[in-house]
Amino acid sequence: MTTDAPAAAPPSDGFHVFDTTLRDGAQREGISLTVADKLAIARLLDEFGVGYIEGGWPGANPRDTEFFQRAQREITFRHATLVAFGATRKAGTAAADDPQVKALVDSGAPVVTVVAKSHDRHVELALRTTLEENLAMVRDTVEYLRSRGRRVFVDCEHFFDGYAANPEYARSVVATAHAAGAEVVILCDTNGGMLPAQVQAVVRTVLTDTGARLGIHAQDDTGCAVANTLAAVDGGASHVQCTANGYGERVGNANLFPVVAALELKYGRRVLPEGCLPEMTRISHAVAAVVNLSPATHQPYVGVSAFAHKAGLHASAIKVDPDLYQHIDPERVGNTMRMLVSDMAGRASVELKGKELGYDLAGDRELVGRIVERTKERELQGYSYEAADASFELLLRDEVLGRVRRFFRLESWRTITDQRADGGLENEATVKLWAKGTRVVAGGEGNGPVHALDRALRNGLERTFPELARMQLVDYKVRILAGTQGTESTTRVLVTTSDGSAEWSTVGVADNVIAASWQALDDAYTFGLLRAGLEPTD
Amino acid sequence: MTTDAPAAAPPSDGFHVFDTTLRDGAQREGISLTVADKLAIARLLDEFGVGYIEGGWPGANPRDTEFFQRAQREITFRHATLVAFGATRKAGTAAADDPQVKALVDSGAPVVTVVAKSHDRHVELALRTTLEENLAMVRDTVEYLRSRGRRVFVDCEHFFDGYAANPEYARSVVATAHAAGAEVVILCDTNGGMLPAQVQAVVRTVLTDTGARLGIHAQDDTGCAVANTLAAVDGGASHVQCTANGYGERVGNANLFPVVAALELKYGRRVLPEGCLPEMTRISHAVAAVVNLSPATHQPYVGVSAFAHKAGLHASAIKVDPDLYQHIDPERVGNTMRMLVSDMAGRASVELKGKELGYDLAGDRELVGRIVERTKERELQGYSYEAADASFELLLRDEVLGRVRRFFRLESWRTITDQRADGGLENEATVKLWAKGTRVVAGGEGNGPVHALDRALRNGLERTFPELARMQLVDYKVRILAGTQGTESTTRVLVTTSDGSAEWSTVGVADNVIAASWQALDDAYTFGLLRAGLEPTD
Repeated sequence: MTTDAPAAAPPSDGFHVFDTTLRDGAQREGISLTVADKLAIARLLDEFGVGYIEGGWPGANPRDTEFFQRAQREITFRHATLVAFGATRKAGTAAADDPQVKALVDSGAPVVTVVAKSHDRHVELALRTTLEENLAMVRDTVEYLRSRGRRVFVDCEHFFDGYAANPEYARSVVATAHAAGAEVVILCDTNGGMLPAQVQAVVRTVLTDTGARLGIHAQDDTGCAVANTLAAVDGGASHVQCTANGYGERVGNANLFPVVAALELKYGRRVLPEGCLPEMTRISHAVAAVVNLSPATHQPYVGVSAFAHKAGLHASAIKVDPDLYQHIDPERVGNTMRMLVSDMAGRASVELKGKELGYDLAGDRELVGRIVERTKERELQGYSYEAADASFELLLRDEVLGRVRRFFRLESWRTITDQRADGGLENEATVKLWAKGTRVVAGGEGNGPVHALDRALRNGLERTFPELARMQLVDYKVRILAGTQGTESTTRVLVTTSDGSAEWSTVGVADNVIAASWQALDDAYTFGLLRAGLEPTD
Repeated sequence: MTTDAPAAAPPSDGFHVFDTTLRDGAQREGISLTVADKLAIARLLDEFGVGYIEGGWPGANPRDTEFFQRAQREITFRHATLVAFGATRKAGTAAADDPQVKALVDSGAPVVTVVAKSHDRHVELALRTTLEENLAMVRDTVEYLRSRGRRVFVDCEHFFDGYAANPEYARSVVATAHAAGAEVVILCDTNGGMLPAQVQAVVRTVLTDTGARLGIHAQDDTGCAVANTLAAVDGGASHVQCTANGYGERVGNANLFPVVAALELKYGRRVLPEGCLPEMTRISHAVAAVVNLSPATHQPYVGVSAFAHKAGLHASAIKVDPDLYQHIDPERVGNTMRMLVSDMAGRASVELKGKELGYDLAGDRELVGRIVERTKERELQGYSYEAADASFELLLRDEVLGRVRRFFRLESWRTITDQRADGGLENEATVKLWAKGTRVVAGGEGNGPVHALDRALRNGLERTFPELARMQLVDYKVRILAGTQGTESTTRVLVTTSDGSAEWSTVGVADNVIAASWQALDDAYTFGLLRAGLEPTD
């Protein structure tokens, strides 16, 4: 693509779903994206069907410049248009001579979002120029970018605070951008302090006063970013700026997923391409994986807890009609209803959970009672079966069979970690096991003691159980339970294992992180061998 | 307190802040509260100044029954009134004969919340009785509890869905409860599917139609629970049901803290006793500690990130005027502004951070540049200084001094963890160190390898540095960074250490959890000794 790409065809797009995960979302504390991360997220957002992907600020840092080059070379976007973000020209220079503005054109992106000051105090104190020059900067920058064939969106930074302080000036920034050829003018609640009623009223008034097409960019500092975004739509905005999982500076931005779900499912408005909405849960979790954060378990619509029921009261009613207790069918957003096993749950929950796992327990009151008791007892020790279905299934299986049957039994293990005087670090483990009547002694090395232990276990068992070669640990989480005694506390380890086609999670609890890991590994491989169709012999 | 406590004085309370953390909040996946936990949370909520604390369902489980006994015996409430939760009487029995209703009276709580069905399908399918009998159940239960001197609030479960399906019936439940003497009738969005505009309209209509005092109970399934609660207030509700940190079933409940903050700071409405609002951040984190969840870092108002700035763009403007970039002064809710050190931050952020830590770096451009470079390089390896101020201060100090000065230097260490054949588990560590020119070899045992290493380190150093005896690890977190290779990934360890008066956090990163822990411990004790006023000799 040349730097003078022709303008895209006039937009027939009635409503813009605009994602800024790669620009504003990356401001979240704890997120740091490589170019490869950004490319991976752009692919996911395009798959999800957003209309616009704001990729970053080309020219402001080499990573973003490289992203725009590679995104246009390497990604064939099916749904989304790539957007470059930048600022109005510097005070006192021509837009054409401003290297920052030039970099936006050079990025090759067909759409440019230009951030403009719209709060008079910010113009004077942060930008240090006059109110008139700021308007000229907006006008010149938009006109220049339009003359280079770009579609232009203008972000009015601090708009709502600015409107409260000086409505006339804030409005004149919108009107100037609109007159200069900006296709959409976005009202930004940059500090995030607004509430829905205010947002709706301001959007409605500005729309009437200026006739500009308006968008909304909400931050979540009052916990109302989703509602503020919807309130702006109620007020007449037809462009919503969001980030995947609500990532963003401070508290975060308006979360793309509940905004889109509300528009599609509550407003009945089609804002995504056909068939994309059920990808929502998968996309949300995949983006979290790329930015290296755990998916927020309690996120609306897509959280693993979003359709999870634990109250005994509910569990019995859910048996009658699940729709009595859920606001939408979770499959519409790619999520599923889950019954939780927990010490608050009664018999009904265990029966439902058993059914989910393929065990019909309804006929055996005593068995269900035993499982409930055993679960409570283990959860009291710190086990959490809510997040470890495979360990719960083993517990259930043991109770149903009335005895513990396993593929292998532990005699002992030992791990040694050695930070040598020459700086080298060594991890060794030895395990002593019995499998199919034979005693096995095996060793392993690894990056850490648990890794070494895992290697030793696999070294010892792979000849007997070649199925293990397909299994791989894909996640390993450590949680300190008591939290008041530092390294003396009880430790819970959750392990997720994959055989390439499915994943399962197991749990271990002990004072000691290695002992807890052993339990979770033991369950993980036992469950995996059962899944592979093998029958335990011991 | 007898079971026939006299009714409290007629409420002069114009607006109810009603907390249900102990009842509805406890339904959150992953929360399991002991009686001691519930008492601790009740104390915190009372300190925060909520008007009502719903403590649980006495009679439904022994834990809740015990809670009501002990709360009334052990806690002197300064602000809050204790509330028992229960259901309307069973169909076809007298309220006085229903043991569940009797248990509510026996709890001694001066206020009882009675949950009533208000959705016709729920009456028929879940309750399996007639619509008329359900109304009689509401009337009888309220009248009976009033006759026993209790103030009564009625929760209309599934009200908004019920109102959509059969507005007349839903309204008749409200009218019946009101006529029978319920002081407040709470409209519950039990499935959480509502949006603010709907909530406001329904509350306004029902208020006009029935004249009952109305409350709101919102769940967060659309991500709008806070906004829905405020919309209900806009519609005329004068009682808000919330939970601390938004804990609750599925996605959660309306979060107490942003609701109260919005009412106080945005509506200008006094809903807490004088002086309580600045306790908000502390109370939020303390409740999280009791329920044993990490405080949500990105929670509005109270999250550690809620007033954290990382964009270089903002950092330079914040130097001019902090109020340009925050929607409220964080001190009003007991939080603080933080400048983050991160690879997105530029020189301005490092200068501000240095100033926060007592180093004036503004004059030395080269030094600031070196610190920025060093920080970027370390963060690339996986270090996160955002959550480890003490490690960052050591880095800063080393750069300012131009050399690394320490109290002790490592030669080597070794840990052995041994799961013996007899079931016993042993953890041993050896460290070899140099301190004040002397070589020290020391050993230690512990619950786990890191604990043993910590013990060995302290055994080796406590004679030379008796200050170490006051220091204690209070938190220990492990994060797997790459997340795709299970136990082979890079590990980040964050350690929080306390000397009884202050806490500080340090970070270590390595392939190996023990090696990463060593680094964090090394930094922790080095920082602690500096804090104690000692000067390093090596």
